[in-house]
Parts: sequence; C-alpha cells; structure tokens
Amino acid sequence: MSNEHLFIKALKGEKVERPPVWMMRQAGRYLPEYIELRNKYDFFTRVQTPELACEITIQPIDHIGVDAAILFSDILVIPQAMGVEVQLIESRGPILPRTITTQKDVDGLIMGAEAIGYLEYVPKAIKLIKKELNNRVPLIGFAGAPFTILCYLVEGKGSKTWDKAKQFCFSQPKLAHQLLQKITDVTIDYLHAQVEAGADVVQVFDSWSGMLGPNDFNEFSLPYLTKISDSLSPRVPVILFPKGSWYALEALSNTSASAIGIDWCITPQLARTMTQNKKTLQGNFDPCRLLLPIPQIQKEVKEMIDAFGADKYIANLGHGILPNIPVDHAKAFVDAVKNYKK
Amino acid sequence: MSNEHLFIKALKGEKVERPPVWMMRQAGRYLPEYIELRNKYDFFTRVQTPELACEITIQPIDHIGVDAAILFSDILVIPQAMGVEVQLIESRGPILPRTITTQKDVDGLIMGAEAIGYLEYVPKAIKLIKKELNNRVPLIGFAGAPFTILCYLVEGKGSKTWDKAKQFCFSQPKLAHQLLQKITDVTIDYLHAQVEAGADVVQVFDSWSGMLGPNDFNEFSLPYLTKISDSLSPRVPVILFPKGSWYALEALSNTSASAIGIDWCITPQLARTMTQNKKTLQGNFDPCRLLLPIPQIQKEVKEMIDAFGADKYIANLGHGILPNIPVDHAKAFVDAVKNYKK
Repeated sequence: MSNEHLFIKALKGEKVERPPVWMMRQAGRYLPEYIELRNKYDFFTRVQTPELACEITIQPIDHIGVDAAILFSDILVIPQAMGVEVQLIESRGPILPRTITTQKDVDGLIMGAEAIGYLEYVPKAIKLIKKELNNRVPLIGFAGAPFTILCYLVEGKGSKTWDKAKQFCFSQPKLAHQLLQKITDVTIDYLHAQVEAGADVVQVFDSWSGMLGPNDFNEFSLPYLTKISDSLSPRVPVILFPKGSWYALEALSNTSASAIGIDWCITPQLARTMTQNKKTLQGNFDPCRLLLPIPQIQKEVKEMIDAFGADKYIANLGHGILPNIPVDHAKAFVDAVKNYKK
Repeated sequence: MSNEHLFIKALKGEKVERPPVWMMRQAGRYLPEYIELRNKYDFFTRVQTPELACEITIQPIDHIGVDAAILFSDILVIPQAMGVEVQLIESRGPILPRTITTQKDVDGLIMGAEAIGYLEYVPKAIKLIKKELNNRVPLIGFAGAPFTILCYLVEGKGSKTWDKAKQFCFSQPKLAHQLLQKITDVTIDYLHAQVEAGADVVQVFDSWSGMLGPNDFNEFSLPYLTKISDSLSPRVPVILFPKGSWYALEALSNTSASAIGIDWCITPQLARTMTQNKKTLQGNFDPCRLLLPIPQIQKEVKEMIDAFGADKYIANLGHGILPNIPVDHAKAFVDAVKNYKK
C-alpha cells in the first residue's frame, strides 16, 4: 500500500523514524544516465514520449535512492495545452513567441477536455512509471502555479524580476484574474488526470511568487493555490511550494495543503513558528551547498533535520539540484538523511 | 547647513513634518532628459565625464523634485578600479570578460591609491554636483556591497541565482574572504573620497545578498557591510540596502548604520518589529506599482507612510525605478509623499 511509505507518513504528520528525502529536479541534468538520453532526444521529445519520461523519472530511484519519484515533465506543458507555443532550447531557457496580454489573447486560450487531451502523454507516462516503480516509492505529480504560468505567458521568456508580468497584473487586474482562473481550471483538471493515472501526491510550484509583495501575493497567487489545493485534497496530499514567499507561511498553514515547501532563505525555526507546526515542511538545503566536501554535507544535513525535527518534515533542497553537482555529493545528501538517527 | 535638510533629519531620527523622498535610479532611464544624453554618449562616458554625471544627477532634482540627489554612477566602477575590465552594452547588462576565481586572480587585483586614483572622475563629479545643487538637497554617494561585487567578479555577468558566485564562496571560503576583504578595503577608501569631495550620506547596495540564506549572509555579507559602516559612520550617515535579506533586519539594526533599505517583500509593520524601531527605514514601494493609475499611487503612498510612520522613515521604492514608468507617475509618487499630512 502506497500509504505506508515514509513519504506519505510524513505528509500525514505521522511519527517516523527518520524524515523521507527527495530532491527537486532529481530526474535530470546532473545524472550521466539522463545526459545520455538528452544527447539523443530533444527536451519535449523526452517529456512527451512516455517511455522516455518513465525512464528518466526512475533513474534517481535506481541511482540515488530517494524516497519519492517525481514525474519528469515541465511546468510549461500547461501553456502548450492552452494553445501557446513554447520553444525550449537546451541551456537557454523557454521562449513563448506569442505572449498573452490582451482580452482577445485570454479569450482565445484552449480550455477543458481539448487542453487536457493534448496532455494525454502524461497519464500514459504515469501508468508506465507506476508499473515500473512497482510500489518501491510513491510518485509525485506536479504543475506550475497559476501566477508562475502567467509570468511566462505575459513575458514570453524568463526574467530576473518579472516586471512585465507584475505590471500586467497591477494595471489590468480584472484581465489578470480571468487569466489566472483559466490557468487554474486547466491545472486542476490536469492534476486530477495525473492522480487518476496513479500519482500519489501532487506538488504545485510557484517558482516566481516571491517577486510579489505580501499584499500582491494574497491577491494574485494565494487564492489560486488555495483553489487547486482544495480541489485535490484530500483525494491526494498536496504540497505547495511558493518559492521566496516566506511572508505567506502563516496564510499557507491555514490552507488544505498537507505540506509547504520552503527555500533556504528562512531558518527552520522561523518556518516552524510561522506555520505553528500545523503543516509538514519540505526543504530547505541551499542547492549550491551540495558542492561542499561530503563530510560537511553530512554535518549540515544532520543540523538541518535537528532544526526542523524529524516529524512533519521532508528533507529536500530549497530549489532544484544544479547541473554541476557531482553524483556522489547528491547521493551523500540523500544518504545523510537516510542515516539520520533521532 | 546640509544637516538641516529633511533627509538628514530623518536619518538622524529627528521628528519631521513629513518623510523625505527619493527614488533609487531616479537619475536615468525613465527621464527624457537622460535619454537624450544616453543617445549621445555611451554608458561609461556618462559615468566618467564629471559634467555629464553632474547634469544627470541634477535632472531629477529639477524635474521630479526629490529631497535628495544620488550620484550618477555604477557599482561596477570598483571592479574597473581594481583592474578588471567591465563592458556595459545598453539594455544587455554588464560583461566582465576576465573573471576572478583563483588565488592568482585575487592576488593580482589593484588596491589602494592606484585603484582610487583610477576613480578620480568621481570626486570631480561630486564637487561639480555640490556646486550645482547649491545646498538645495543633500547628495548621496554610493558603492556596491562586497558580496554583490564578488558576484559580478566571479560570474562575469548578471545571473538570476548567482550559483557560481555562491559555489565559489562555499567551496573556497578562505579565498572568498580574501576577495571580500580586498573589495571592502577599496570600497572604504572610495567612499571616504566621495565624502571628502562633498557627499553628505553614503548608501551601500547589496543587490544580491538576498540569494544567501541567513547563515551565509552572516558569513559572507554582514561582516563587510559592518566594516564599511563602521569606517564611514559617524563621519556621514550610512544607509545599508541588502536587497532581499529581510531575515537580517534584526542584525542590521545593531550596526552603526543610520538607515536600512528594504524591498517590497516585507510589510512595514514586520520591518519595524524586526528593527525594534532602532533605525530609520527606507523603502519600500514596489517599482512595478508605479504603473497604477495616479489616484491609486497617491492612496497607496499614504497607506505606506501610515504603516511606517512619518518619523525615522525615508519614502522610496523597494528597488530601482523601471525604464517604462511615465514621468508623471514618478512625480505623482514624489508629490504624494510631499503632500503627506501626519
């Protein structure tokens, strides 16, 4: 039964012998087995071919020994499903040649069954993965949060500050809310399709919500995270990860989500205080610190778990693993969690 | 006497009728008078020609009516003074073709009088500016903080996450501290030269310190901000602006600095609590919100001042003004502060 896994127990807040561990972006770029596939197939071929997505999803289970698998995919499949072209050139970041900034653009977005139909390769991949996992570890499905997807739709490419996206929200709030609601509706259908196919947990990545101040987060991010969480929970546990939005921890601790992801810019102690120990917390090792010598990684992982406490905690990085991290350092991080003694 | 200016009073914590106001990057890109000069002279010509730097520094005093002038310059003049080439191509961001990553690189940096001599155009500009200002408003000198300068020296260009710079600090901490100390030494000499020439206040911009977690900020940023502050204060009031490092507000409130700059990702209430009202606070209007209709800017400025309180407060943006802000919106922001009634 998947609900006996350590990862699920931690999400339920049950007592555990040690915290579960996985790493954001664990399926990918730092793994030689992944780089081999990357040299053969372009990004969206890897994402859209269930056999390849399955193989990549399983790699870190076999080679690193993490306690959960996460679907190999990308948050920008939602714009694609809504009819917006996304180009992804290796090591350059995404380009959306046609941006969404007018009422006509928003009205023209594809919704409902047609959008979800475009993403049918995802449930296919999940079914393969579940078979291949054979209940070794649970599978996390995921999607980008509506505000983060809006950022890409409006700017058309990555940004340090997302000024255009924010200015769109601030100067055309009604249109922004229409767009956010449309993204939310498609995302909810998409995540339910993932669960239907076998995803045991879902995580919502609000990668850019930290560019919003507290009031703007409450207006443009939180309501949509809440809607997604309320729709998926309690069917499956939901993890919300609004990166950089430390100021929202108290509000997030009052949602239906099971867990909240945090980055490395907040101490475990303060995160516990702000969430009043109501939620499981996930994070928050600085991915850059995986370059430290292995004995120091081991020492700092122990300190991190001591600070969070072993219960209601999922050990993870505070953001995705970086491409230049040696595999034995990634493994040292995972093993340090697995060897933790209360 | 410049110490009777509203801006200086606010820095000293004296009672004021309304808070002073200026805007980060007020001299530049959104002003048509600046764009005219930009079309004639390249960036470093504008920075290095005292008459041009003077004219640009004065423009927002004449056209927007801010309560303080800030020297038109760039934080990357310090790498240049230390012998590192910096290319700045309009609308692309800086490029440092030769990065600083080895002991030999660090040993080869130019220091002391030779470095400061390279920057002699700055005191010249300041003397011109002070004459031209004729005591209408005080003049702020500035420099980049050592950690932020290290970021550019190590990465060689802008970055969203500064992973290389952070990995350099984490994996070679001794060399990182040598580099930070060298930058600190040159910066202290440079800021004293600015004060000698007439700068009334100095601000230190740690634009990327928010990429560090709390412990790493305490190791790689705070000690050097403190050294700079201790060297300049009380000769002139010092403003520290470690953008994104909200978690350090309590520690910063125990430094010798007169004021701390904050971005828009923290509420005024929490910033006051964390600094225990010990320091003047400067900020924190989201620059993107200057695109709102003018009546809403007026309303939000009033709410912001009410939340900070009019004393021990300098109204400002939470980051630099954006190039696409209409001049009348910038002026509306400034006027809303000037019309504030306690």
